[in-house]
Amino acid sequence: MKIAILPGDGIGPEIVAQAVRVLEKLKADGLAVETVTVPLGGAAYDQYGEPYPEATRDVVRTADAILLGAVGGPQYDTLPRDKRPERGLLAIRKDLGLFGNLRPAMLYPELAGASTLKPEVVAGLDIMIVRELTGDIYFGQPRGIHVNDAGEREGFNTMRYSESEIRRIAKVAFEIAQKRNKKLCSVDKANVLECTEFWKEIIIDVAKQYPDVELSHMYVDNAAMQLVRNPKQFDVIVTGNIFGDILSDEASMLTGSIGMLPSASLDANNKGLYEPCHGSAPDIAGKNVANPLATILSLAMMMRYTFAREDIAKRIETAVQTVLRQGYRTADIYEAGTQKVSCSGMGDAVVAAL
Amino acid sequence: MKIAILPGDGIGPEIVAQAVRVLEKLKADGLAVETVTVPLGGAAYDQYGEPYPEATRDVVRTADAILLGAVGGPQYDTLPRDKRPERGLLAIRKDLGLFGNLRPAMLYPELAGASTLKPEVVAGLDIMIVRELTGDIYFGQPRGIHVNDAGEREGFNTMRYSESEIRRIAKVAFEIAQKRNKKLCSVDKANVLECTEFWKEIIIDVAKQYPDVELSHMYVDNAAMQLVRNPKQFDVIVTGNIFGDILSDEASMLTGSIGMLPSASLDANNKGLYEPCHGSAPDIAGKNVANPLATILSLAMMMRYTFAREDIAKRIETAVQTVLRQGYRTADIYEAGTQKVSCSGMGDAVVAAL
Ligand SMILES: CC(C)[C@H](C(=O)O)[C@@H](O)C(=O)O
Ligand SMILES: CC(C)[C@H](C(=O)O)[C@@H](O)C(=O)O
Repeated sequence: MKIAILPGDGIGPEIVAQAVRVLEKLKADGLAVETVTVPLGGAAYDQYGEPYPEATRDVVRTADAILLGAVGGPQYDTLPRDKRPERGLLAIRKDLGLFGNLRPAMLYPELAGASTLKPEVVAGLDIMIVRELTGDIYFGQPRGIHVNDAGEREGFNTMRYSESEIRRIAKVAFEIAQKRNKKLCSVDKANVLECTEFWKEIIIDVAKQYPDVELSHMYVDNAAMQLVRNPKQFDVIVTGNIFGDILSDEASMLTGSIGMLPSASLDANNKGLYEPCHGSAPDIAGKNVANPLATILSLAMMMRYTFAREDIAKRIETAVQTVLRQGYRTADIYEAGTQKVSCSGMGDAVVAAL
Repeated sequence: MKIAILPGDGIGPEIVAQAVRVLEKLKADGLAVETVTVPLGGAAYDQYGEPYPEATRDVVRTADAILLGAVGGPQYDTLPRDKRPERGLLAIRKDLGLFGNLRPAMLYPELAGASTLKPEVVAGLDIMIVRELTGDIYFGQPRGIHVNDAGEREGFNTMRYSESEIRRIAKVAFEIAQKRNKKLCSVDKANVLECTEFWKEIIIDVAKQYPDVELSHMYVDNAAMQLVRNPKQFDVIVTGNIFGDILSDEASMLTGSIGMLPSASLDANNKGLYEPCHGSAPDIAGKNVANPLATILSLAMMMRYTFAREDIAKRIETAVQTVLRQGYRTADIYEAGTQKVSCSGMGDAVVAAL
């Protein structure tokens, strides 16, 4: 297993350090792991003047999987657009063809109190959002800010999905639904946008190959409502890049503990980039208080999706459940009656539970 | 006051009928109101073969304000795209230049239990979402489904905002914020989309004329999260058409009683179309069980924004509060211990309370 480690910015290095300790424990137990650490985002800009430099590109292209902390920080906000940390993230996704973004939103029973929703609405919540990650208005050309024909300045972007882009993400989503509760909801705005009308048409066509999966369709505005009204109606959701960006963040917040949620971004051969759903949290960076569990759970996803090692994935996930049951909590998920630990303290607990 | 009445489809006619009774009561009390009823959406298609026919256009163009029920129904889903009810709605918005969509999301203390969020998270919730309604990817050209240069089918749309479009909606939002708690949050995706980077630039420029309003900026994915995490941090939100579509529906569901929420869509001279936030609910149409309060409250917004009759707006809103306090509830907001009433029964109660 050749794994590239990208600590990134803000709390990235400290949470990734805890995941690396988990990896080292697995290695000590006999797993053949090789890691290389390279920068991405602001850290890469600081070192190379680029958010996705060649040195990083060379390493991640030949790695089997990538573990990323998070990118971004206020000190980079004034950089020219193409030097900003987020551009590094968009560039690595596009460069490696990581079109399949899996974002589970699931509630840990031990953390049910953290949700802003009523317990009965979110108890047992377990949604998988499949977001297309290398197409849509994120990458569509033409785009820019210019003076239009009427002589006025305007900003513009292009939403675009080709048939093959939709087919391949549909395949990922249907296959995941097959392994879960066999319900797939495709989210679009087909009543207004031709791009998503086309999306819906292709999804319906792909569905013919998955007769065991129950397919439904929902407009994005309604989906944003239904996630609040009754999130447990969903099993797997598939949608485009921008709608997926919005809905997966909304869904993750339903659990109240975004510090717990991992994500995977896969290419056509299950090579993947794994990262927590949360951001780089510059305000608490360097204080050893961040929650490393989403990053550690991202490692579990890596074992499952890239290396097909369900056994190791389960071992990591069980260790995380154990520490939660033991009552260990970082500050973001702390409640009276539990034991507050630091970022590295949580790492200690997980390594011990492994 | 020349008011065009557009009952529309589904439950539209029955909820509008109750609002018209309120209007008639005001007329009996001396208000100079003149109404004309014309079809829109599916009802218009049935009668004229078009969702926004000339007969309707002629009436609404010369009216001071328009009261709409809702449009859409399953029987119209198979019509060609340009004949569908939603196209009638988009067409009237564009034709009348109704660019300023105001969508309040507020929690009635009497209905606090209806929310899926914990009481302390939503108690006292009172957000105003200002959504741009005649630009963005809803109307941007070019758009369509075609075979691209690579010989593959694709769907595409164009997100587009010109400087003047952003300036005029910014003005609406800042002025509303001035009359409320003087906090405005502009929602964009400026880290990825040039169109919204430009949006942000213009909003910042307009802000110079409103030094008393505290302006903040938030990415749309974060806004979708923050609405769930801590909705009371917001006072006024301003955003584009598609982000506003998604966020206003999410925000409306935070209250748990979308049957209570009105909306206004205004042109540059405060001419407006007023409609409930909810849809045409074909499943309960014709059963006299729908909640007419959002439509009646839309009438209150009409008095406030188009006719500058704050006194009448307040009178209507007070009547609605009174019936809630009296314990009257339609099925959608019914709880044990309250008195269930029909759609027309709720109309009776409001007229009596007026
Ligand atoms: C940082 C940003 C470019 C990114 C995105 O919009 O995809 C982030 O929000 C995410 O969801 O991973
Ligand atoms: C029906 C549809 C075209 C419309 C929209 O997307 O604007 C609706 O969702 C709304 O928000 O009024």
